[in-house]
Amino acid sequence: MRHDGRRPDQLRPIQITRGFARFAPGSVLMRAGNTVVLCNASIEPGVPEWRAASGAGWLTAEYDMLPASTGRRRERNRGAKIDGRTQEIQRLIGRALRAAIDLARLGQHTIYLDCDVIDADGGTRTAGVTGAFVALCDALAEGERRGLWQSADVLRSPVAAVSAGIVDGAALLDLDYREDVAAQADCNVVMNGAGEFIEVQSTAERGAFSEAQLGELLRLARLGVAALLDEQRRALSASLGR
Amino acid sequence: MRHDGRRPDQLRPIQITRGFARFAPGSVLMRAGNTVVLCNASIEPGVPEWRAASGAGWLTAEYDMLPASTGRRRERNRGAKIDGRTQEIQRLIGRALRAAIDLARLGQHTIYLDCDVIDADGGTRTAGVTGAFVALCDALAEGERRGLWQSADVLRSPVAAVSAGIVDGAALLDLDYREDVAAQADCNVVMNGAGEFIEVQSTAERGAFSEAQLGELLRLARLGVAALLDEQRRALSASLGR
Amino acid sequence: MRHDGRRPDQLRPIQITRGFARFAPGSVLMRAGNTVVLCNASIEPGVPEWRAASGAGWLTAEYDMLPASTGRRRERNRGAKIDGRTQEIQRLIGRALRAAIDLARLGQHTIYLDCDVIDADGGTRTAGVTGAFVALCDALAEGERRGLWQSADVLRSPVAAVSAGIVDGAALLDLDYREDVAAQADCNVVMNGAGEFIEVQSTAERGAFSEAQLGELLRLARLGVAALLDEQRRALSASLGR
Amino acid sequence: MRHDGRRPDQLRPIQITRGFARFAPGSVLMRAGNTVVLCNASIEPGVPEWRAASGAGWLTAEYDMLPASTGRRRERNRGAKIDGRTQEIQRLIGRALRAAIDLARLGQHTIYLDCDVIDADGGTRTAGVTGAFVALCDALAEGERRGLWQSADVLRSPVAAVSAGIVDGAALLDLDYREDVAAQADCNVVMNGAGEFIEVQSTAERGAFSEAQLGELLRLARLGVAALLDEQRRALSASLGR
Amino acid sequence: MRHDGRRPDQLRPIQITRGFARFAPGSVLMRAGNTVVLCNASIEPGVPEWRAASGAGWLTAEYDMLPASTGRRRERNRGAKIDGRTQEIQRLIGRALRAAIDLARLGQHTIYLDCDVIDADGGTRTAGVTGAFVALCDALAEGERRGLWQSADVLRSPVAAVSAGIVDGAALLDLDYREDVAAQADCNVVMNGAGEFIEVQSTAERGAFSEAQLGELLRLARLGVAALLDEQRRALSASLGR
Amino acid sequence: MRHDGRRPDQLRPIQITRGFARFAPGSVLMRAGNTVVLCNASIEPGVPEWRAASGAGWLTAEYDMLPASTGRRRERNRGAKIDGRTQEIQRLIGRALRAAIDLARLGQHTIYLDCDVIDADGGTRTAGVTGAFVALCDALAEGERRGLWQSADVLRSPVAAVSAGIVDGAALLDLDYREDVAAQADCNVVMNGAGEFIEVQSTAERGAFSEAQLGELLRLARLGVAALLDEQRRALSASLGR
Repeated sequence: MRHDGRRPDQLRPIQITRGFARFAPGSVLMRAGNTVVLCNASIEPGVPEWRAASGAGWLTAEYDMLPASTGRRRERNRGAKIDGRTQEIQRLIGRALRAAIDLARLGQHTIYLDCDVIDADGGTRTAGVTGAFVALCDALAEGERRGLWQSADVLRSPVAAVSAGIVDGAALLDLDYREDVAAQADCNVVMNGAGEFIEVQSTAERGAFSEAQLGELLRLARLGVAALLDEQRRALSASLGR
Repeated sequence: MRHDGRRPDQLRPIQITRGFARFAPGSVLMRAGNTVVLCNASIEPGVPEWRAASGAGWLTAEYDMLPASTGRRRERNRGAKIDGRTQEIQRLIGRALRAAIDLARLGQHTIYLDCDVIDADGGTRTAGVTGAFVALCDALAEGERRGLWQSADVLRSPVAAVSAGIVDGAALLDLDYREDVAAQADCNVVMNGAGEFIEVQSTAERGAFSEAQLGELLRLARLGVAALLDEQRRALSASLGR
Repeated sequence: MRHDGRRPDQLRPIQITRGFARFAPGSVLMRAGNTVVLCNASIEPGVPEWRAASGAGWLTAEYDMLPASTGRRRERNRGAKIDGRTQEIQRLIGRALRAAIDLARLGQHTIYLDCDVIDADGGTRTAGVTGAFVALCDALAEGERRGLWQSADVLRSPVAAVSAGIVDGAALLDLDYREDVAAQADCNVVMNGAGEFIEVQSTAERGAFSEAQLGELLRLARLGVAALLDEQRRALSASLGR
Repeated sequence: MRHDGRRPDQLRPIQITRGFARFAPGSVLMRAGNTVVLCNASIEPGVPEWRAASGAGWLTAEYDMLPASTGRRRERNRGAKIDGRTQEIQRLIGRALRAAIDLARLGQHTIYLDCDVIDADGGTRTAGVTGAFVALCDALAEGERRGLWQSADVLRSPVAAVSAGIVDGAALLDLDYREDVAAQADCNVVMNGAGEFIEVQSTAERGAFSEAQLGELLRLARLGVAALLDEQRRALSASLGR
Repeated sequence: MRHDGRRPDQLRPIQITRGFARFAPGSVLMRAGNTVVLCNASIEPGVPEWRAASGAGWLTAEYDMLPASTGRRRERNRGAKIDGRTQEIQRLIGRALRAAIDLARLGQHTIYLDCDVIDADGGTRTAGVTGAFVALCDALAEGERRGLWQSADVLRSPVAAVSAGIVDGAALLDLDYREDVAAQADCNVVMNGAGEFIEVQSTAERGAFSEAQLGELLRLARLGVAALLDEQRRALSASLGR
Repeated sequence: MRHDGRRPDQLRPIQITRGFARFAPGSVLMRAGNTVVLCNASIEPGVPEWRAASGAGWLTAEYDMLPASTGRRRERNRGAKIDGRTQEIQRLIGRALRAAIDLARLGQHTIYLDCDVIDADGGTRTAGVTGAFVALCDALAEGERRGLWQSADVLRSPVAAVSAGIVDGAALLDLDYREDVAAQADCNVVMNGAGEFIEVQSTAERGAFSEAQLGELLRLARLGVAALLDEQRRALSASLGR
């Protein structure tokens, strides 16, 4: 029994609110338990210079935490250096979402996925991936309304992400912050709609982990992602009413 | 008659949602029409080095716009330079809120007011001031619960802010973005609960403005601030339920 | 009676020296009492990228203080961040001087106004505006000599600026540093040759100020600007002898 | 058969040269095929401020590529931002090597592991981890000579790292650059002397990968790391002759 | 005969104005022909951290050019990087002036020499050294008035600097900008009151120079420095009248 | 007799290893006693923007020290500022090597010379110049193989550099670190194959130096450079075997 009453293989309650920010083509307020991430998708003309010759479009992500999103106020990433954790997370989100679409079908456009953490209680990067996919779908629909592309052509597969970890020797799905700091190992997994892996990042926080433990973490992640894909479908089935 | 049906001296609809971010001592989602600003208040131990000798506390503000808060995506303030507009606004918010409290009663603590714009439709800085005051009140109450101070000692006066401007020769209260870009002059006014000025910033965007026009803008601002102070009181009269 | 013997509505002695720096199209050493600001105007080909489509020219200002301009040495603005006060001041100077000219008549040129403080004894930003206008006139004349424009077409109105403040309850014109640090409120006012306002920035340093007090500050500022416009005219009536 | 004649489960030739840089406590020139990384270990007094209270020491890594290490010259990481890839890699190397030691036994010292790539032909981060472990051992011995600690107390386990990937549907060990750019998925694995995982990072470069494919990559990595641990032992068994 | 009528071994007219900036302990407006450099000396408590253990004081210099000091406006050194030329020059000025004093006699104080170029017509770095020495003397006198030290103890020797160069095969003293850009080699020389060298920097701009040519440049420099030391003495013999 | 047994006019043992880094067109591991500098030459298409109009090519240098190259670990030049010493040295190396070639014959290409110090025992900048010339020759040969130019057309003269200094009153050639920190004056000299000077930089570290002493330092430098030019010729006479 976990400290919040969940079973080892149970996700936190999920709530996906579309259309949260008014001026963004896609905007999702993603809640996973007490973790809240605002995932906005923007469409901009042009692509980065190094992509120009390819003829294809681009998708990139930025991640940040609002200063008050954690118990202790966090300084803004305004200085000369973006901290390494922030960079790692936004690169992960970008790779994950690029796996969801066919960049060649975007034309000379760039989609930005901005994931800003409102409340941080563990799992912000995986909530970012899962919410950003829904925001991406809304932005693709908006692009279709503007005549930029056909969403069905661009979209290849849904993607969702979840964490799992080993706490006190037990494998647990979807760690919250309290579990995360106690974990001996944790694992962030991004998967597509076919149950395949896009990314597996598993790290021992102290000590090491065995192949059997990794297998157990991946089994939990598979369960979690399947449930998250259902939540995404349910959220997207409603009309956004724009 | 204004483009959205308002009278010249009419505010946009105001909605003040307290307790929006879970881990911040004070957190207000401030809506003024389509403008939405998340105002979070944090309490941190210590004061800036240059304040240390004074024995008093400190209060400072940071302002930013989420990249997707406007129609065209805005780059994050991550580079080496913070743009001048951002600096001006956060300095204004900080000065305004310092006028609301007695810094000497904070002890060696710093209160941060983080105003992050979710949706930008004009008047984000004044919405930031008005919302931040409510977040500040909740943070002061939280500090009192922690035994840091007595809120009643710290608080000197409510503060609220509003804009007014001259559009097509007419003085209008609380400009939205469409009115703002058409304005010949605009004015941001911060006032306290006694109807006195904390700050008046009035700028001709093109041409110039007369003393009579300035007087008219100040009259509108006075009306607007009075209504905003009422909204703040109403919002604060409910229990936050922490 | 003020500490330096001035009446409440009296400016400090003004001295406007044109042609101070030899290689700048316009260069004014502006003295207001013990405050000395070197105001240089340069003409550069081209406009910022975001202006290119407009067909009009541009005018911008930069402000800085020499490290030894105050009693305690001030670090240069060389690091990654330009401090907020510097940004505010140079933005104010730029807006003020843009109000003096018709940018559409500059062609694809940018005028830079560099205000560097040699001695800081209060009122550096308003001395900067007032001196920069004279330097601008000399640069416009130089541009006319180079065949770039007709000065008379470009120039719309003189601009000058002055401060006023409330010290020990009394409204005083043109505060020096000693008065400035003691002021309860101060006000920087930029006006044009027709006695209209370009900008009013009035801030309570402690407490607040009433509408009557603001009115009194604006009355003093109007007197001061009128005198400064006279000084500008007098300085410009002499030949620069280039 | 691979383009360079290796079997799918075959490492590139390894060469571990100790004592390469003369003034570093540990210095290893690590060659894996055409990839060459200089791994230097330094011992510095003190720990980062946020570690000070713990009483334990610290170990951190920095990674960089010499500009001429790739076919096309790469700019130095001198600007304001360190690129995301560099940050990710140096964080990975730091985590990996921290798993090799007991930080509590270092006292108030920081060990820096600097991995500078001389020649980049794929696998630079895993070569960095493997070489840095040898440099770390030499630095621990040097610290023991200086009376700072007992190496045997500090050292917990060897660590080594290797990559594997799926190219044209086949799982291959230790990709070189040509294989890496063609890979559909790749995997970097850090393991300890007990055959346990410290870190698994597996990413689909295009498409996705199945659980079976991940299993195959981990099997290859296990083989590769076992061989690398042997190479480390062999290199360390010789006298450094200091 | 040079383009401005000087003989090969003739300095440009020198004018040394003391007390130019009012709030600096030492302030010299140094003119050498059309080159004008404002050299301010400040006294600050404390020394850089790396000097703290020595017990001695410190002297350092900063150099900059006002944007309008050259024909084409120069951007301010505000970005992340200080350009290499600026760094070289301010390091040279600092070394030169440290040779003039006994740092051990300054106590825990730092003297800053700020050299800001008003008009640049060649030889700004050498004018900076020569003028900074005079400003340093006035700052030392001011420090003596404040009871910080005895000037006579601190001062070891005057220093002055001049340039020479080879133009069209002829060695010329004190190049102006027009001569400087045409020079095949130039040489900056700092000397003390005993006719010894503090620094010699001689660079071929195109081609190379012979030992005989270097000898000729040093001979001219010796003449020039002797004359500059006279000018410094003359300027310092007057009362500053503070 | 010097501390390492050398005569006053004796160089440290020189070793020039070509082809050290595999992917660089030119790569030299330059050893001078215990000082080791890796000098890589790269050829990149294009020239800096400010060179574009000239039609000629460009050559520039960057210098850095690996963090572990000195006894005490040195932080990387990653922050916003490159330190002044680094800038001075890389500018010196660039100037020196530009004197070796005819930039007009490079076409629109830029040659980068990257000098990274592996071990620092004094004289790293002069070892950098001397080694970089050999790397440049190999890069020119590679460019010729690629059909970019004829090396014989591009190359004007070999260049080499050495230091000399006054230690305990005696003039010594090629100071190592221990001698360098004890020197009263030191001198870095760059010369060409005709025995002419490209650059002379002579600085008093404490006190001053006489013209006679400077003459003695230049005499030693002439001897040293002659020997270094021989070493360069010997190294280049072997086949690189690419």
